[in-house]
Amino acid sequence: MDELWPAVEGTTISYISRPPSEIWQREFPRSLVILGSTGSIGRNALRIVTANREAFQIVGLSCARNITSLAAQARQFRPPFLAVLDDEVAGGLKKLLPKNYSPTVFIGSKGYAQMASLPQATTVLAAQVGAAGLRGTVSAALAGKVICLANKESLVLAGHAVREICARTDATVLPVDSEHNALFQCVAGHGQTIRSLILTASGGPFFGKNVDSLRRVTKAQALNHPNWRMGAKISIDSATMMNKGLEIIEASHLYGVPAHNLRVLVHPQSVVHSLAELADGSLLALMGTADMRLPLAHCLLWPRCAQAGANRIDLTSVGALSFHEPDSATFPCLDLARRALESGTDICTVMNAANEAAVELFLNDACSFADIPLLTAKAMENYPKNIRTNTTDTSADPAPATEAWLRHIEELDRASRVFVYSLAKSQSDQTGRNIVRIKPQTAHSGE
Amino acid sequence: MDELWPAVEGTTISYISRPPSEIWQREFPRSLVILGSTGSIGRNALRIVTANREAFQIVGLSCARNITSLAAQARQFRPPFLAVLDDEVAGGLKKLLPKNYSPTVFIGSKGYAQMASLPQATTVLAAQVGAAGLRGTVSAALAGKVICLANKESLVLAGHAVREICARTDATVLPVDSEHNALFQCVAGHGQTIRSLILTASGGPFFGKNVDSLRRVTKAQALNHPNWRMGAKISIDSATMMNKGLEIIEASHLYGVPAHNLRVLVHPQSVVHSLAELADGSLLALMGTADMRLPLAHCLLWPRCAQAGANRIDLTSVGALSFHEPDSATFPCLDLARRALESGTDICTVMNAANEAAVELFLNDACSFADIPLLTAKAMENYPKNIRTNTTDTSADPAPATEAWLRHIEELDRASRVFVYSLAKSQSDQTGRNIVRIKPQTAHSGE
Repeated sequence: MDELWPAVEGTTISYISRPPSEIWQREFPRSLVILGSTGSIGRNALRIVTANREAFQIVGLSCARNITSLAAQARQFRPPFLAVLDDEVAGGLKKLLPKNYSPTVFIGSKGYAQMASLPQATTVLAAQVGAAGLRGTVSAALAGKVICLANKESLVLAGHAVREICARTDATVLPVDSEHNALFQCVAGHGQTIRSLILTASGGPFFGKNVDSLRRVTKAQALNHPNWRMGAKISIDSATMMNKGLEIIEASHLYGVPAHNLRVLVHPQSVVHSLAELADGSLLALMGTADMRLPLAHCLLWPRCAQAGANRIDLTSVGALSFHEPDSATFPCLDLARRALESGTDICTVMNAANEAAVELFLNDACSFADIPLLTAKAMENYPKNIRTNTTDTSADPAPATEAWLRHIEELDRASRVFVYSLAKSQSDQTGRNIVRIKPQTAHSGE
Repeated sequence: MDELWPAVEGTTISYISRPPSEIWQREFPRSLVILGSTGSIGRNALRIVTANREAFQIVGLSCARNITSLAAQARQFRPPFLAVLDDEVAGGLKKLLPKNYSPTVFIGSKGYAQMASLPQATTVLAAQVGAAGLRGTVSAALAGKVICLANKESLVLAGHAVREICARTDATVLPVDSEHNALFQCVAGHGQTIRSLILTASGGPFFGKNVDSLRRVTKAQALNHPNWRMGAKISIDSATMMNKGLEIIEASHLYGVPAHNLRVLVHPQSVVHSLAELADGSLLALMGTADMRLPLAHCLLWPRCAQAGANRIDLTSVGALSFHEPDSATFPCLDLARRALESGTDICTVMNAANEAAVELFLNDACSFADIPLLTAKAMENYPKNIRTNTTDTSADPAPATEAWLRHIEELDRASRVFVYSLAKSQSDQTGRNIVRIKPQTAHSGE
């Protein structure tokens, strides 16, 4: 019949996974592992669990180093499994736990991966920060879990692979990121052809500023997001707009849509969380308060839509809603991300690692805000010439998620960070800026 | 499982009909009858048919008196059936048709009903103006058609009955009204519990004015809708906001939602066509250009979403979007409609007929703009004392759509009009205003 219809300019949505099984949809309480339970997302998730106590059984909680917070959560929810960054942290944790409670404590990135694949849990909230979240997501996918995905880097570094694994294991991805969650709700029930997906961006604290004025911004200014309360890394990424860049890559993998069908609109009020442009040119939008409990509850309780403790939004009091083209001259990270998306998985890994390293330098007063995109771009330009690994690109591997494949991503991540640290140091030595020495490291597992 | 969840304040959507059959969804060309083909909706529908020529077969077209336009349409589409208001009009029409083309011409309200139930057509676009559309819609519903419903009065006068008939005959209603169509798209795939449905209103040409300034408005001002190009009756209804009142009643019947879960927000830009508030307080919104081809194509081609010839909307150029509580002191028609909805079917019929008569008087310079809600309210107050029929209320009839039931609605409609005409005349006699004499009449079948 298709020949009867006027040609639809657009693209076909091909979601990254099948929906969760009927059994999962009906089964309560849901057995839940939270990777990154002491971070902003993890804490909000536990507020939802507390408000819906009969709907969840907490199987595992994890952090990197924040054991005070993890111990408090563990005392409250008594999960049989915990995970932390290393043996030393684990030792400290055990001293904080009650005598009559002896959970199994997993250690390090392999420990997080073990917890993500526990047969006792059907559902994994992947809420670690940064590239460190990759192994947890991959492990959950290999084990066929329902993954409530807050760690966008998993898809930035390995979107094709996660898709391939989901097809193989019947794992499911539900998107926690508010923009991607909004798209998920907008495209539900609307067939498969859309003209574009439109991610809204608040513009961050520096919307409307120009390149010059960005040279002088302070850490406190950059961390002061106008609408959302989030962790430090994502707040800086919002200020540089790299967060939206990463989200373009994430959306491309989640919805199987090419870069040219993905748009960004700056929407300073953060009321419209994202929009899907239908084949006829109409837009479906999800609006709501800027409260992460909304998308979190949407995923954790899906397909049931329940009150998540967030305020209702009153459109008569939020002020007029405006939309603007992003300023890619002042915020070059958007274009860096598009370029990376079009250039392949390895360059996405380089970009993400370089950005994480540059943000870390900025948070340690070791580079300026404007250096973040410059250092990131330099790293991308220097791959593969000056960013080398002993591993080979395995992104075309028909069966990814092997140890060699993960090792390659991690090596590339590490090499990109080393490049950024040394570039920042050499610039600092030349300019006399007092650079803080940071030990080059691989991604650490976020709170 | 429900007891596990936090109580959801809200209501359960119960759509007026089941969706169209799989067979209808796949079957092309669709055999289509258009009731009211020379009006604004009908002409836009035929533009969509023209742009999708292989997707439709036109079985019947109709108008009230506009035979020049109907003859031109008939020459183009050669439907085997036509319908007009009376024998005299039919005689005029036949003279305008080519010699080699001899369609069957149906006459009057029973003729429209005959055309709506033709076995040759699966699909009926009900686009007559006002209460006159009732018999056509009921006839199509009794015959189990897929009804693309632009005639909101069918539901205002007989919403419960249309629901009951659809359950019995498997007829389907797809909403053409842009607000209700937006809601249809928003609630698709989102389960059944919502907190509210929010109809947006442009506010019409007099948004922001007060009661005093409305006394002096002219017909040209009232007809000059800021965003939508529509027929005269609906343009005046938009200016008084009775259109939104009728739409509240329509939405209540379409979605099975009580009045207190239906809100109106004034949104002067007419970009957001309506919103559904989900159980968690989020809002799903449909946005688009103010072009009736969008909701028309959505219904006529459903579930396929195709380009309808409307422009894409560019949110960066439409200006900021604002939302306001309606001013029910200046625009009392909204509250009249809510009161009617809560008071039952007969009073809805009285309100609608009184408003139609008052608008007709206004368009004939026989009353002022501010008189429209006053005359309508007076009629509602005077029912049943001074608005009587020889028929009895059959709204509780277990098998509606009998001739007696239709007769009752039509009698009540007529009596309400007579009341308004005589009230306007007596006021005019008292004030010396030069009233145009209008022959009391039943609803005439719109163009």
